Amino acid sequence: MEKEILVSNVDKEMKIALEKYEEPKDIKRVLSGMRPTGKIHLGNYLGALKTWLELQDKAECFFFIADWHAITTSYHDTKDLADNTLEMMADWVAAGLDPEKSVLFVQSSVKEHAELHLLLSMITPVRWLERNPTYKEMMENLKDRELATYGFLGYPVLQTADIVLYKADTVPVGIDQIPHLELSREIARRFNRFFGKLFPEPRPYLSEAPKLPGLDGRKMSKSYGNCIYLADTEEEVNKKVMSMVTDPSRVRKTDPGHPEICSVFAYHKIFTPLDKTKELEEACKKGEIGCVQCKKELAKNLNNFLVPIREKRQSLLSNPSKLIEVFSEGSKKAREVAKKTMEEVRNAINFLKV
Amino acid sequence: MEKEILVSNVDKEMKIALEKYEEPKDIKRVLSGMRPTGKIHLGNYLGALKTWLELQDKAECFFFIADWHAITTSYHDTKDLADNTLEMMADWVAAGLDPEKSVLFVQSSVKEHAELHLLLSMITPVRWLERNPTYKEMMENLKDRELATYGFLGYPVLQTADIVLYKADTVPVGIDQIPHLELSREIARRFNRFFGKLFPEPRPYLSEAPKLPGLDGRKMSKSYGNCIYLADTEEEVNKKVMSMVTDPSRVRKTDPGHPEICSVFAYHKIFTPLDKTKELEEACKKGEIGCVQCKKELAKNLNNFLVPIREKRQSLLSNPSKLIEVFSEGSKKAREVAKKTMEEVRNAINFLKV
Repeated sequence: MEKEILVSNVDKEMKIALEKYEEPKDIKRVLSGMRPTGKIHLGNYLGALKTWLELQDKAECFFFIADWHAITTSYHDTKDLADNTLEMMADWVAAGLDPEKSVLFVQSSVKEHAELHLLLSMITPVRWLERNPTYKEMMENLKDRELATYGFLGYPVLQTADIVLYKADTVPVGIDQIPHLELSREIARRFNRFFGKLFPEPRPYLSEAPKLPGLDGRKMSKSYGNCIYLADTEEEVNKKVMSMVTDPSRVRKTDPGHPEICSVFAYHKIFTPLDKTKELEEACKKGEIGCVQCKKELAKNLNNFLVPIREKRQSLLSNPSKLIEVFSEGSKKAREVAKKTMEEVRNAINFLKV
Repeated sequence: MEKEILVSNVDKEMKIALEKYEEPKDIKRVLSGMRPTGKIHLGNYLGALKTWLELQDKAECFFFIADWHAITTSYHDTKDLADNTLEMMADWVAAGLDPEKSVLFVQSSVKEHAELHLLLSMITPVRWLERNPTYKEMMENLKDRELATYGFLGYPVLQTADIVLYKADTVPVGIDQIPHLELSREIARRFNRFFGKLFPEPRPYLSEAPKLPGLDGRKMSKSYGNCIYLADTEEEVNKKVMSMVTDPSRVRKTDPGHPEICSVFAYHKIFTPLDKTKELEEACKKGEIGCVQCKKELAKNLNNFLVPIREKRQSLLSNPSKLIEVFSEGSKKAREVAKKTMEEVRNAINFLKV
C-alpha cells in the first residue's frame, strides 16, 4: 500500500481521479519526458529516473528530453538551453538509462510532435485547458500577464501529442501530473470519436518513491537552492550534507533526537544499509550519537552511490559529440514510430497526400 | 483612390490601422494562402486570386493551400478535405497561377509551419489572441462552446508562422484580415526582441477589386448558396445569371431601371466591355431593354471569361497525379526556404543540434 502513503498528501479530487485507473499490469509501451531545465538532482532521480530504470527492463520505453516544453515558461531566457540538454543527456545515461534498452531522444528533433500538437489543437476546447489546475494556479499568481502565453495554456496539448504519437499505454508521472494525463485521455478520446479509434488512452504509472526533502527540509527544488545533484563532487556532497537541517529540538548531542522528523534520516533510509540505519536511529534517540557523526555516515554512503554516476557522467561529457550521437540515433528510432503514426493520422483526417 | 472605396465600408478603427502601413512599393516576397473549403467562386477570384495573378509578375510569390487551417473550424467533418484540396489546385492553376512564376504548395506538406507555430505559441500572450475580433465574434455567437477550440483561438499564431517562415514582407489580404496581420506583426516583433532580429514585419497589400454581390444581392458566400464558381458549366452559369436579383422597383421592362443598385450591372462592369456596358446602362435607365436581355448579355460575357478557365480546369483534373506533382514540386521549393529559416530560428533560440 505504498500508493496510499503518496495519496495521503493529495486532495480528495485527486484521490478520486486516481481510483479511476486500473493498475497498469500489462504495460507494453511507456513514454515519459523531462524538461531540460538544469542538472538532475536527487529528487528528480528518485521521483522519476528511478522508476524509468525499472520500467526499461519491463517494457518498450521511449524517454525524451522535452526541449520544446522547456521554453514554455522560460522563453525570455534560453541561453542555457543547449547546455542543459547536453547535461541531461549525461545525467540520464550516467544514471543507467540504456540506449540499448530504451529509445532515448530529443523532442525537437522529432518534428512530428509539433505536427500532431497542431492537429490536436484543432479539436481541444479552450475551456478544457483553462480548467487545468496548473494553468489556473499560474493565472492567479501572475504578476505579469504576458507570461500567460498561448503555448503555456496549451502545453497539455503538446504533452498529449508526445504520448499518443507513440501510442504509449503507460506514462510514469508524479501525482501532480494526474490532471494533465486525464486531459490527454480526454483529447485522445475526442480524436478517436471524430476520426476513428487510433490512440489508446494512456494510463498513469505512479512512482512509489518516497519524497526526499531538500537540504533545508523543504521540497527539493532548484529554485530553493536546496538540492544535491547527481553531478556534485565529493566535496560538494560532504559540504551540503553537513549543512542539512536536522531535528531542531536537539541542541546538544546528548539530547535525545527524533529521527522521524530529521531530513538526514530520510536520506539514510534510502542510501544507508538497513542495519546501519537502524543502529543510527537507536543511537540518535538515546542521544548517543551527534548529528555531525550521523551526517558523515550519510555523506559517505551518498558518495558511494554517486561515485559511479559521477564518473560515467564526466566520461560522457568529455566526448559530447558521441553523447549527442546516442540521442541522435534514438531520435531516428523515435521518428520511425512517429512517422508511422502520423501517416495514420493524416489518412484518418483525410489530408491529400502531396 | 480605389482603396478609399474599400475603406469606406470599414469602421474607423480599421481605417486608423490601415493608415499605419506605408504603401508596399518595394515588394520582394509575397505570401498568401487559402483554406480549401470548396470550389473557388467569383468572389474569391476577384477578392484574392486576381491580386495574386498580378503579384506573381512583380515579386517572388509563395501561395499555399491552407489545409491545416481548413480543419480549424470544420474538424467535425473532414471527409471532403482531400477532394477540396485537389479542386483548389485545379482552380488555382486554371485561373492562371503559374508554377514557373510562383511557388505553389500545400501547407501540410511543409512541417516547418507546425514547428514554427509551436515555437511562436510560446511567446504569444493569450490575451493578444482573445482580443482578436474574429475570435470575440465567434465567442459571442457560439451555441456550442466546444467549437471554441485551442486551435481556433490560436490560428493567428499559425498564420504568423506561415508568413514569417518565408520572411515575406507583403501579404495580400482582405480588409477583414487586417487585425490578424497586425497580430502577426506584433508576434514577429516580440520574437525579434527575445531572440534577435530575424523576421521582417509583414505589411498588408489590399486588393483594389470591387466587391461582387452574390446571385441574391448579398455578399457572395458558399454558405448563402449564391455563388458562381469557376467550375460552373455554361448551362449552370446561364441559369444562375437568369436567377439574379435585379432592381426590385422595375416591374415592366418599359419601367426605367436603376443600374447603380442592380447586381447584374455590378457584373457587367467587370465582365462586359466598357462601351457595351455603357450602352446597356443607358437602355436600362430609359426602359428600352428588359432584364432578360441584359442578363443574356452578361451570361455570354461571363461564359467567355470562364471558358478557358473551365477547360483548363477539366484538363488538369483529368490527370490528378500530374496536378498533385506540380504542388509536390512547389512544396519541395517551399521546404527549402522553410528549412533555412528554421535553422536560423533554432540557433537563435539555442536548441542543441541533435
